[in-house]
Amino acid sequence: MRSSPASLVTAEPGPVYADIEAAARRIAGQAVLTPLLRSPALDAELGARVLIKPEVLQRTGSFKFRGAYNKIRRLADGPEPPRAVAAFSSGNHAQGVAAAAQLLGLPTTIVMPADAPAIKIANTKGYGAEVVLYDRYREDREAVAARVAAERNAVLIKPYDDPDIIAGQGTIGKEIAEQAGSMGLEPDIGLAPCSGGGLVSGTALGLAHHFPKIRLFACEPEGFDDTARSLARHERVSNAPGRTSICDALMSPMPGAITFPINERLLAGAIAVSDADVAAAMAYAFRVLKLVVEPGGAVGLAALLTRKLAVAGKTVALVLSGGNVDPALYSKVISAAD
Amino acid sequence: MRSSPASLVTAEPGPVYADIEAAARRIAGQAVLTPLLRSPALDAELGARVLIKPEVLQRTGSFKFRGAYNKIRRLADGPEPPRAVAAFSSGNHAQGVAAAAQLLGLPTTIVMPADAPAIKIANTKGYGAEVVLYDRYREDREAVAARVAAERNAVLIKPYDDPDIIAGQGTIGKEIAEQAGSMGLEPDIGLAPCSGGGLVSGTALGLAHHFPKIRLFACEPEGFDDTARSLARHERVSNAPGRTSICDALMSPMPGAITFPINERLLAGAIAVSDADVAAAMAYAFRVLKLVVEPGGAVGLAALLTRKLAVAGKTVALVLSGGNVDPALYSKVISAAD
Repeated sequence: MRSSPASLVTAEPGPVYADIEAAARRIAGQAVLTPLLRSPALDAELGARVLIKPEVLQRTGSFKFRGAYNKIRRLADGPEPPRAVAAFSSGNHAQGVAAAAQLLGLPTTIVMPADAPAIKIANTKGYGAEVVLYDRYREDREAVAARVAAERNAVLIKPYDDPDIIAGQGTIGKEIAEQAGSMGLEPDIGLAPCSGGGLVSGTALGLAHHFPKIRLFACEPEGFDDTARSLARHERVSNAPGRTSICDALMSPMPGAITFPINERLLAGAIAVSDADVAAAMAYAFRVLKLVVEPGGAVGLAALLTRKLAVAGKTVALVLSGGNVDPALYSKVISAAD
Repeated sequence: MRSSPASLVTAEPGPVYADIEAAARRIAGQAVLTPLLRSPALDAELGARVLIKPEVLQRTGSFKFRGAYNKIRRLADGPEPPRAVAAFSSGNHAQGVAAAAQLLGLPTTIVMPADAPAIKIANTKGYGAEVVLYDRYREDREAVAARVAAERNAVLIKPYDDPDIIAGQGTIGKEIAEQAGSMGLEPDIGLAPCSGGGLVSGTALGLAHHFPKIRLFACEPEGFDDTARSLARHERVSNAPGRTSICDALMSPMPGAITFPINERLLAGAIAVSDADVAAAMAYAFRVLKLVVEPGGAVGLAALLTRKLAVAGKTVALVLSGGNVDPALYSKVISAAD
């Protein structure tokens, strides 16, 4: 069916649950089927049943591999397979794209901020990608990435505002639903980190399909609470420039054009946490959960441990989205709580 | 059937697989059913399929809860339930006993070396136990523990040389077998840390029942390779006194009277690793696996990463036995590898 003129000016449509099912088939055997963990200590601390989805255990150390592999694999299987791919990313999308492209035999160029964690830059190079650094505060990363992609005849893989990326991240929601189901549990509440919104919108699509009554929350760093403010104003608003955060992975300027309508439809709200809350949550994950969680991966846990949400007696699905953190910062964070 | 006089002088009989099945029923719902993890990066590094059993995710942060709960629960359900329990331990058995006894409503006294990791002492107190410190180099811990137990009318829970403790740890082997089976995999090789031998003997009993051809190895710190030397001499020999190791959890003086015959029957050998090997393995677990592993928990991973065993093309079951490590040591270890 040809598109009508009217549909040509509407935004690209968001993904639906069938896209998540297709993504799940595409990533099977390449992505890690991360477990759904229980911690008696965390349950006792909160008086709740917390179902922990540790995407720190995912290939590349974060959930980003799911969306990247789904996107690039779909392109590679399509009518015009790319000769090369490119991406801009503070680090986790970089690693996801680099690892996915390497598995699919495609050369990759990644544009990364010069102040990205060294572990993320090193790992991205480790997956065979060419890395181009830029100044996060002085250059426009999208412009740099567009130029780099054009020079290399590479297809630009967006970090979140793409239906295939969202559907790939949505496999997390599908897996949580299936794993919780096999435990005989139904989550009342779901929490996921949020920057551009790819993870939380995808996870929401996956979870809401199975659990229509679940209350889902985006978790953001203070100063980067664009999704909270956008939800309140019913339109996409940006973060004030010049702010910084310990959460290097969650510093996108504003919600995505495709992710935000999904989040507006499916989320119950958004929660902001401070750098100190995040550091305490990382130290808790070290001391009690024995999981290495990076700042941006720990915002949901921080929201729970600071009691920003009433969860007593509830079943809570919690996404720990990544674990790529430099030893120096990690050492500082775990020692401060001593 | 009454025992013949001859059998009265033989050692206490070791557990059999049925004891592991009974232990599995006893600990169900109290112990965490830890997942069996895959890491594409570790598999690529070794050219093998590694099935990681992360007991760092177990209640109390180590496998020790399994044996402790099995033992104390069995006593509590028996004809003469204890009024109190006691144990001596460098820390992980301490936490396991304290947590198990707390769940079963029993007062607990733990005798710990004064130089045990602070996190282990603090956690043991956190599970409601009274902690009595002793000097690891000047006092006999068994004598101190026997005195403490007698004073408090408490039943002493041994750390490894007890059939119920071994059977409890053996649930790890049973779980690995079932989880590997559900993945369609059969381990060729198994690796577990070894001190007194409770973990490795129990795991061996569990795995060998399902996989009679599996080759199992005890992993020990250099200077505490009593099991390696005992296997070579076909008799239990002690470690030379005065040695020390980064692996605070693996400093028992010699193999157990019950554990050693099981190990002699089921193990293919034992592998010793240096403190430097262990530190590098902990850093690898931080950087790549995103799991917090304590020194004693990382000896098997250290054996693999240092290529002390030929595993290319093989399926390897690897137990990461615990993750209770002080932030100061952990920071030093992960930063050194930077």
